[in-house]
Amino acid sequence: MVNGPLLLTIAVLGGTGKEGKGLAYRWAKAGYRVLIGSRSSEKAVKAAGEIMQLLEGSSSVVGATNLEVAGQADIVVITVPYAAHRDTLESVKDVLQDKLLVDVTVPLVPPKVSKVQMPAAGSAAQEAKEILGEGAEVAAAFQNVSHELLLGEDEIECDVLVTGTSKKARTETLTLVEAAGLTGWDAGPLENSVVVEGLTSVLININKQYGSTYAGIRITGAQNKQTER
Amino acid sequence: MVNGPLLLTIAVLGGTGKEGKGLAYRWAKAGYRVLIGSRSSEKAVKAAGEIMQLLEGSSSVVGATNLEVAGQADIVVITVPYAAHRDTLESVKDVLQDKLLVDVTVPLVPPKVSKVQMPAAGSAAQEAKEILGEGAEVAAAFQNVSHELLLGEDEIECDVLVTGTSKKARTETLTLVEAAGLTGWDAGPLENSVVVEGLTSVLININKQYGSTYAGIRITGAQNKQTER
Repeated sequence: MVNGPLLLTIAVLGGTGKEGKGLAYRWAKAGYRVLIGSRSSEKAVKAAGEIMQLLEGSSSVVGATNLEVAGQADIVVITVPYAAHRDTLESVKDVLQDKLLVDVTVPLVPPKVSKVQMPAAGSAAQEAKEILGEGAEVAAAFQNVSHELLLGEDEIECDVLVTGTSKKARTETLTLVEAAGLTGWDAGPLENSVVVEGLTSVLININKQYGSTYAGIRITGAQNKQTER
Repeated sequence: MVNGPLLLTIAVLGGTGKEGKGLAYRWAKAGYRVLIGSRSSEKAVKAAGEIMQLLEGSSSVVGATNLEVAGQADIVVITVPYAAHRDTLESVKDVLQDKLLVDVTVPLVPPKVSKVQMPAAGSAAQEAKEILGEGAEVAAAFQNVSHELLLGEDEIECDVLVTGTSKKARTETLTLVEAAGLTGWDAGPLENSVVVEGLTSVLININKQYGSTYAGIRITGAQNKQTER
């Protein structure tokens, strides 16, 4: 696809991980220019190549260091394990000014991953906002979706709750949710991200208790332009 | 119904409120002995009379003070506004030993009810546990279900996430969820109640953004004995 949605460029920091790869694949397929970031540029190039194979040449995906891709992107998505969250954000902070950061991080604390344990800031997304400073626009999304489903073609039975520092940040992120083939909902201010991040532990618990693999959630009793289709 | 489920007695503290009345109605209909509690015994007697009318004489519901009904019950459910949460629990603390407390409270902070704002303990349910002390068994449930739907007969399209201090507390509460005609899920330790309480603010936000009245959630991708039916 030559003419992507407004030709926006999305950098996926930690895009060598499964969640990041899945999102990058879906956005590239939807026509965005996608950059894969990693601490190691070799790993990023390798992951970009893997996604290109899945795309069968329909779009080009490039890999480089987190700092390089963050600098070139319009929107920066972070999908690193929580242990690397702070360091990654601090390493790219200077090039994130005037860009939207979308945080996918879930602050799981092994081994008790089915128990909600939030950082002092309230949630990983609020911690990101603290690190980036006053003017930063931060949204949070995709924390409840299984990476394995993102790389597949089946319909994903899990809605995406989007929180963010402004209506604009949430609306831009909801566009990315739709581009990834998912149903998104405006879930309010960034402070509400504690619910969405914590829901991942609840779903892990449900998988454990009921023998499921991909427990998710759907919003009921409300309609948006995606559910109406 | 003469022979209720094990003839258990449920006290609903703050049972004069809409949520409490709705739950009391459903449990009485399912055959439980239900006691309505309030700070004022007159108000409790009046609410019990209103529920009796809805039940058309099929079951008896009694009203008295919170302290009286808590003392007589096997299971105590608290459904008060958050502003009355601490005082109510402290007033019945002495008679709650060896009883299960089910907390329905959502710590909304008006006027910003669509923004998650948890108490220092982490959630209302964790605060209840702190007030009652070490040995107390506390579960939390029903925070996302609209009281208007509880008093109606239509199918409620909202699952109930149950958290609690022990597997036993959660299992007993899941029985109450099923008795109320709802689908419940074991959502893990009481620490996870922050997610369920906070989800109410997310749903309020969705109602506001998408013009709905009864936004709720369903768990997808997993099955339990209720969803299998």
